[in-house]
Amino acid sequence: MNVEISRLSNGLIVVTDPMAQLESAAIGVWVNSGARNESRTQMGISHMLEHMAFKGTRRRSARDIAEEIEAVGGFLNAYTSREQTAFHARTLKSDVPLALDILADILTEPTFEPDELERERQVVLQEIGQAKDTPDDIIFDYLQMVAYPDQPMGWPILGEEETVSRFARKDLIDYMATNYRAGSMVMIASGAVVHDAMLRLAEDKFAAYRAGEQPAAQPARFIGGEMHVGGDLEQAHVAYAFPGVSNLDADFYTAQVYVTALGGGMSSRLFQEAREKRGLCYTIYAFSHSAKDDGIVGVYTGTGEAEAAQIGAVIAGEMASLAETATVEEVERAKAQLKSSFLMGLERPSSRAELIAGHIFNYDRVLSVEEMTARLEAVDCAAVRRFGEQVMTSTVPALATVGPAGRLERYGNFAGRFGSRPTMRAAE
Amino acid sequence: MNVEISRLSNGLIVVTDPMAQLESAAIGVWVNSGARNESRTQMGISHMLEHMAFKGTRRRSARDIAEEIEAVGGFLNAYTSREQTAFHARTLKSDVPLALDILADILTEPTFEPDELERERQVVLQEIGQAKDTPDDIIFDYLQMVAYPDQPMGWPILGEEETVSRFARKDLIDYMATNYRAGSMVMIASGAVVHDAMLRLAEDKFAAYRAGEQPAAQPARFIGGEMHVGGDLEQAHVAYAFPGVSNLDADFYTAQVYVTALGGGMSSRLFQEAREKRGLCYTIYAFSHSAKDDGIVGVYTGTGEAEAAQIGAVIAGEMASLAETATVEEVERAKAQLKSSFLMGLERPSSRAELIAGHIFNYDRVLSVEEMTARLEAVDCAAVRRFGEQVMTSTVPALATVGPAGRLERYGNFAGRFGSRPTMRAAE
Repeated sequence: MNVEISRLSNGLIVVTDPMAQLESAAIGVWVNSGARNESRTQMGISHMLEHMAFKGTRRRSARDIAEEIEAVGGFLNAYTSREQTAFHARTLKSDVPLALDILADILTEPTFEPDELERERQVVLQEIGQAKDTPDDIIFDYLQMVAYPDQPMGWPILGEEETVSRFARKDLIDYMATNYRAGSMVMIASGAVVHDAMLRLAEDKFAAYRAGEQPAAQPARFIGGEMHVGGDLEQAHVAYAFPGVSNLDADFYTAQVYVTALGGGMSSRLFQEAREKRGLCYTIYAFSHSAKDDGIVGVYTGTGEAEAAQIGAVIAGEMASLAETATVEEVERAKAQLKSSFLMGLERPSSRAELIAGHIFNYDRVLSVEEMTARLEAVDCAAVRRFGEQVMTSTVPALATVGPAGRLERYGNFAGRFGSRPTMRAAE
Repeated sequence: MNVEISRLSNGLIVVTDPMAQLESAAIGVWVNSGARNESRTQMGISHMLEHMAFKGTRRRSARDIAEEIEAVGGFLNAYTSREQTAFHARTLKSDVPLALDILADILTEPTFEPDELERERQVVLQEIGQAKDTPDDIIFDYLQMVAYPDQPMGWPILGEEETVSRFARKDLIDYMATNYRAGSMVMIASGAVVHDAMLRLAEDKFAAYRAGEQPAAQPARFIGGEMHVGGDLEQAHVAYAFPGVSNLDADFYTAQVYVTALGGGMSSRLFQEAREKRGLCYTIYAFSHSAKDDGIVGVYTGTGEAEAAQIGAVIAGEMASLAETATVEEVERAKAQLKSSFLMGLERPSSRAELIAGHIFNYDRVLSVEEMTARLEAVDCAAVRRFGEQVMTSTVPALATVGPAGRLERYGNFAGRFGSRPTMRAAE
């Protein structure tokens, strides 16, 4: 990556990441604000604002926005996460200025027209319904709530029916004025783009954007516990989480290697034990989710009602065993997998832009490919075992289930398998 | 695309699609056999075979297969569709020979060991459970069953609990001997690859593969009707289908443009009417699915229990209106969207390999990018209207619902909105 970085006088950062051979580009504006920047009554407002940005500006109706970008074969999209909101486009290189004009328009002059708000509220309520009908997705909202109860870090990104039903135009305007500040925003273009041209466009569109930064979010604190949601489902969907690493943690890559060895591919311990050897599930995987100041590692699986009886012991057993017996071979294999999926991701402009956004918000700079791969390469077997032992010392994991999970090992039993060092467990 | 094509003496086709600038490749073997090549008692066996191929060969255990490919950071995967089964890998260019060695191994010498079959059967039963817990996915199985009842074209790809529970080792061997024939297989490599080297590898691995072609599948015949599946869900998931186009149909691209204008993006008629104007849903889209001899066009949406009352009339209304009033502007917009997503897809080696497989099986050659874009460009507003009118003449659409769809317009009412030419409807 040969990125060039500039900063407008109001603080907005402009990053250009040219990719030779491409005829298209991914371009977007990332705002360093998401669900965890909301108060309790604002729950879901970041996401509602993301929707409403597309519903009309002083210069364009919602239909104009859709028609203009699609007339040139472009794609306009947006997403809200816990820490960020992104507005981005994918176009042929000749249409980058148009895409940026639309992005700037929806970010600088959205009208949040009350009639449109009423209609979009219904759309978001439908989106919440759709999420609830997707158990292997909604379970991560429940897991987050249990890991971070009564904290913005635990809010569901879509909000709740109750909060979404109450947002008024003024709430959106206030939230935007507080959180959408040039010093907390970055414009990124990856692909067939040139920095000077991008910088001129950024000056033109964003130089007048309100300066300053958004207020810091409340620090996250992992608490843990359990949450069970019923439902007439075929499978028991089960997710566990343990304290993990922040984006800034020295063990960031150790955690990645750890979860890959635990449950990251066909050769991982959980895939081999739970699926290949015992046939308990079709999907099982481990994950590491990091935020700026905290993170979780955990495991998700969808298993049968009867099979659920075994799965807790299998997961805890493989976690304990990995902490004690991780081999050089499996650690190197996990690193090779992570490295190649990282390098293949760099072939896609949208993945690159997203990677860059994370770097800017977390490190205030863009890490080089060499630096990232060197940090990954530096993880060794001892580090993975040490990290695994640290995870095993958790006393209060988070557990969420959806569906017929009545036969799952009780939370207290499962938690009792943790909280001590491996040598002590072995002596029991 | 600068593809080179060779054919081994047993009939197996080898296609190389070099992409300059890439350091990795997508390589795979596509077999021209899938769910529609199954008898009723074989329902799901194509997919079971796809799973069992990974469960061990004469030279490698299941664990060896997983570890060898992941040790070099490669990814091995497979999928089964109604017409094809694909085994493919993504690796750095230096590991292409290893990937091909493994692919050849699992295709030429799988052992289908009975103990492994028992375990994998449980995994597939879990996969069926997972599919049933994903209403916006399983609904397409139900829709297919209604469109093509009592025909292999309507079988669910995963099979049913009953059939999957009965497969024995001999069933897999018989199915493979019948359907996995060199004359019905193609090996494709896209990315950092060279034809001569690929051809030598193919000769080495596949020259002895059984010659011949698999028996032709039973022709598909669209019948239509309705199917309703309950479930304790938030949303009513609704899918309609109408007779569409085969891959060989002169209107193949017309159908693509039609469904894009109807429900392919934010500016499409259904998105504007059902979501933007009425707030009835979060997700709504139109699709065109084509097989070699037949196809369907249709619409899917997830809507609220109350909102479901309106959705049938909205969908039929937009279909009728598009057939009568499609504009040059919206047709050109749909073409621009299709063209740019097609061109962006060409940036990914795995998309290219899949595209090439479809061309070989459907056209016996690889269409050039110019030919495909020219066929797309040739679609005009008159063609879209004509195609839309033709869809409106369907007398027996297919309807599938999952969840609380009790207030949805009755099937007979909905079907009554079709079956006549637009001018006749206008006169009613």
